[in-house]
Amino acid sequence: MTNDATARPEARNPRGFIDRRARDLAAERAILAKVSAVYERYGFEALDTGAFEYADALGKFLPDADRPNEGVFALQDDDDQWMALRYDLTAPLARFAAQNWETLPKPFRRYAYGPVWRNEKPGPGRFREFVQCDADTVGSSRPEADAEVIAMAVEGLEAAGLPAGTAVIKINNRKLLNGLLAAAGVSDEGQKLAVLRAVDKLDRLGPEGVRLLLGEGRLDESGAFTKGAGLSSAGADAVLAFTAAGGAGGRADTLDRLSNIVGGSAEGDAGLTELAAIHRALDSLGVASDRAMFDPAIVRGLEYYTGAVFEAELLLQTADDRGQPVRFGSIGGGGRYDDLVARFTGQPVPATGFSFGVSRLVSALRAAGRDLGGQARGPVVVIAFSQDDMAQYFAVAAELRTAGIPAEVYLGASGMKAQMKYADRRLSPAAVILGGDEIAAGKVTIKDLDLGRELSAQVADNEAWRAQRPGQQTVDRSELVPAIRRILEA
Amino acid sequence: MTNDATARPEARNPRGFIDRRARDLAAERAILAKVSAVYERYGFEALDTGAFEYADALGKFLPDADRPNEGVFALQDDDDQWMALRYDLTAPLARFAAQNWETLPKPFRRYAYGPVWRNEKPGPGRFREFVQCDADTVGSSRPEADAEVIAMAVEGLEAAGLPAGTAVIKINNRKLLNGLLAAAGVSDEGQKLAVLRAVDKLDRLGPEGVRLLLGEGRLDESGAFTKGAGLSSAGADAVLAFTAAGGAGGRADTLDRLSNIVGGSAEGDAGLTELAAIHRALDSLGVASDRAMFDPAIVRGLEYYTGAVFEAELLLQTADDRGQPVRFGSIGGGGRYDDLVARFTGQPVPATGFSFGVSRLVSALRAAGRDLGGQARGPVVVIAFSQDDMAQYFAVAAELRTAGIPAEVYLGASGMKAQMKYADRRLSPAAVILGGDEIAAGKVTIKDLDLGRELSAQVADNEAWRAQRPGQQTVDRSELVPAIRRILEA
Repeated sequence: MTNDATARPEARNPRGFIDRRARDLAAERAILAKVSAVYERYGFEALDTGAFEYADALGKFLPDADRPNEGVFALQDDDDQWMALRYDLTAPLARFAAQNWETLPKPFRRYAYGPVWRNEKPGPGRFREFVQCDADTVGSSRPEADAEVIAMAVEGLEAAGLPAGTAVIKINNRKLLNGLLAAAGVSDEGQKLAVLRAVDKLDRLGPEGVRLLLGEGRLDESGAFTKGAGLSSAGADAVLAFTAAGGAGGRADTLDRLSNIVGGSAEGDAGLTELAAIHRALDSLGVASDRAMFDPAIVRGLEYYTGAVFEAELLLQTADDRGQPVRFGSIGGGGRYDDLVARFTGQPVPATGFSFGVSRLVSALRAAGRDLGGQARGPVVVIAFSQDDMAQYFAVAAELRTAGIPAEVYLGASGMKAQMKYADRRLSPAAVILGGDEIAAGKVTIKDLDLGRELSAQVADNEAWRAQRPGQQTVDRSELVPAIRRILEA
Repeated sequence: MTNDATARPEARNPRGFIDRRARDLAAERAILAKVSAVYERYGFEALDTGAFEYADALGKFLPDADRPNEGVFALQDDDDQWMALRYDLTAPLARFAAQNWETLPKPFRRYAYGPVWRNEKPGPGRFREFVQCDADTVGSSRPEADAEVIAMAVEGLEAAGLPAGTAVIKINNRKLLNGLLAAAGVSDEGQKLAVLRAVDKLDRLGPEGVRLLLGEGRLDESGAFTKGAGLSSAGADAVLAFTAAGGAGGRADTLDRLSNIVGGSAEGDAGLTELAAIHRALDSLGVASDRAMFDPAIVRGLEYYTGAVFEAELLLQTADDRGQPVRFGSIGGGGRYDDLVARFTGQPVPATGFSFGVSRLVSALRAAGRDLGGQARGPVVVIAFSQDDMAQYFAVAAELRTAGIPAEVYLGASGMKAQMKYADRRLSPAAVILGGDEIAAGKVTIKDLDLGRELSAQVADNEAWRAQRPGQQTVDRSELVPAIRRILEA
């Protein structure tokens, strides 16, 4: 301990890290409790892997890299092995499944939530630590496993505060586009990826912009040229027709349209068969097209998806800081990945899952005016006048707590005015005042702080305020709990 | 993706890190939900700081250290600043309080839980990542703030599964021993610490061993010599009499005895006054001596405590792996520390708090035969016979889920026998069998898996087993949910 200012560290958050207060945490915990209950009802079990994985297990690094910190927070253990903080919950699941494959019940259905870390440039609303929530089925190649994950995501988002009509899951299958490209003679993996990347920009660039990226390339407003996928004009037409096959009608209608476009190639047919099975299972599970639809324009960036892909999109009207309507976009997604466990074992293991960012969902709910953080009200504050009467104050606090009402005795060193200000800052519903007079008369004075604030605004001057004491009432000591309850219920 | 075995990473946990499965997580979540509810009832608000702090903010490091990883996981950010994963929840609170002091309601009462990381040698039951739960009041020097933290710890542990009589909080005050030592002419900080360290070994060495450590020193069985604190024989007598002043009677009796031993010195009297105020507040809060007692033998290792210290001790009889009774010891602790925020601001800010290890509490509850992890039962498993009947299976699963009963359709590729084994491994309460005959007849067959296991043990041979089908019943399809409920309630 030192009082030398030069030796004092500055109190500040590391770049890209934030502190989260009660209101945000209440919203996040409510979401996770509700979603967990849904996921457990679907037979998924909770799993928590540690924060660290060996860097080689994360799969992004060359074993001989000098310092593998590209995108992750990595450090070298004292046995010289590189460890890194997990950047998602999928890579640790793949490691866990490979490690325990012999003894796990199969298919293995697990959900997990917790922080993930990305060593990226932080920016506004862009943090280097955030909470994700994932559910995956490992060891089933059945399309019905995709359907269950989708149905569960639908129900989970509804439980979290987004009922039918406010969000939708859009479903696609990588095999459809692969089949289409095979029929068009495209077999080069790089060219396929370029097509995927182009389609992924439909939202931003529209069909004509994407057509350029599917063909020779596109010159943007800044003058920068993006090389295209090099498809022929007919190939680009086919891809754009494919991506436009969603929309009107239900899942069955979209399937019909897709069948005309991509049917015939082996991979396209496989994709159609899978989507049809997903459709039937969703029907059996009571999930209609307004909650889970087919949309061939959905890409999902990650290269590791091998079949079905899904994206949850917010439909609610949201507004930005200036009140302008904005498209909030994706609030989660997932798909089928059959190669992640194979990295460890050499044996391909089919897997499918859905993931959402918990903070992003909280933001989405807030932007849509649905706030789950209302639980962050402060406690009833018992005002402390005199050291001699502390026993009375504590007895009142204990009585309120026993009745399930959050309460505390003010324990700072300030006077009445500062204590009332403290109660205001805590968003307390009420203050309890036990002066000498009240104690002698077996009474207690209760101030309704919300009502007081409201009424104070209407009172002309200080003197009138003192005469009226807005929102204040004195009741028998035995009436304390009922009186506070009435205030809480108002 | 590669099939080259030499390039495949091994699937393993980093040293000292573990994966936690559903049963452990259910216990941990139940504890945190119950304790959070108690803490919020006491007016403490939730706070979550990020995983990282700048290394200088953790307070253990010289700013010019080449690589500050002693005891923590540290890495250098791309702006060259050292960051480290938090090793407890107190240092981040001190940083947060200093950073936001002007705008916080004061006193600031917050609770927090989450993983902390220690870069130490892992061992059996000793991990490098574990979950802590803390509550602290920052900005109150009143002993009543200590009393509230103690009362809350008592109630929190009770809510977590340790009712009165199974755990006790032992309370001491650093000022008492300081006063005693001042009266004995000891003012050297190093000597005081040596005395504290000696007293801390009372449990292990007994009074005679501690007397040696208070005096010249002690030679242990291995022949190693530990230098003592260098007190005179009279000084050592006084310290030992002090540590023995707990025990019989309630808090008031202990206070009387302590007053005779340490009264008179200014610091000793200050400590006695604080303990008396804590005693009165605990009485007002309804916390008797069987739940929170004074014990002058309590030290708490950390040097940063400046006044009251407390330790929660398990009283339940626990057994080790071989069934031998063992003393489980401390399950949490805390105290008053008035200098942590001053590291940043130069202004001393009084603070007091209580902390417990969540996994350690789960272990304590298990060792005492109180398991909170019973919620980890698996789902009802709907057996999948035929691809043609998947719609029926999913409708059954959806019906059960709507009734709040966890359920899933088996989605692997194996036959009937493997599916039953899967249900067993998931600890499923029941399997639902919908063969062609059942579907045609509007029936459903339900197998009570617990009962089946029990009865199977009594059945003589395979043939008899097949004839009796233990635990199995066939009911009308409309009776599905009531029949499953009866099994769950049995």
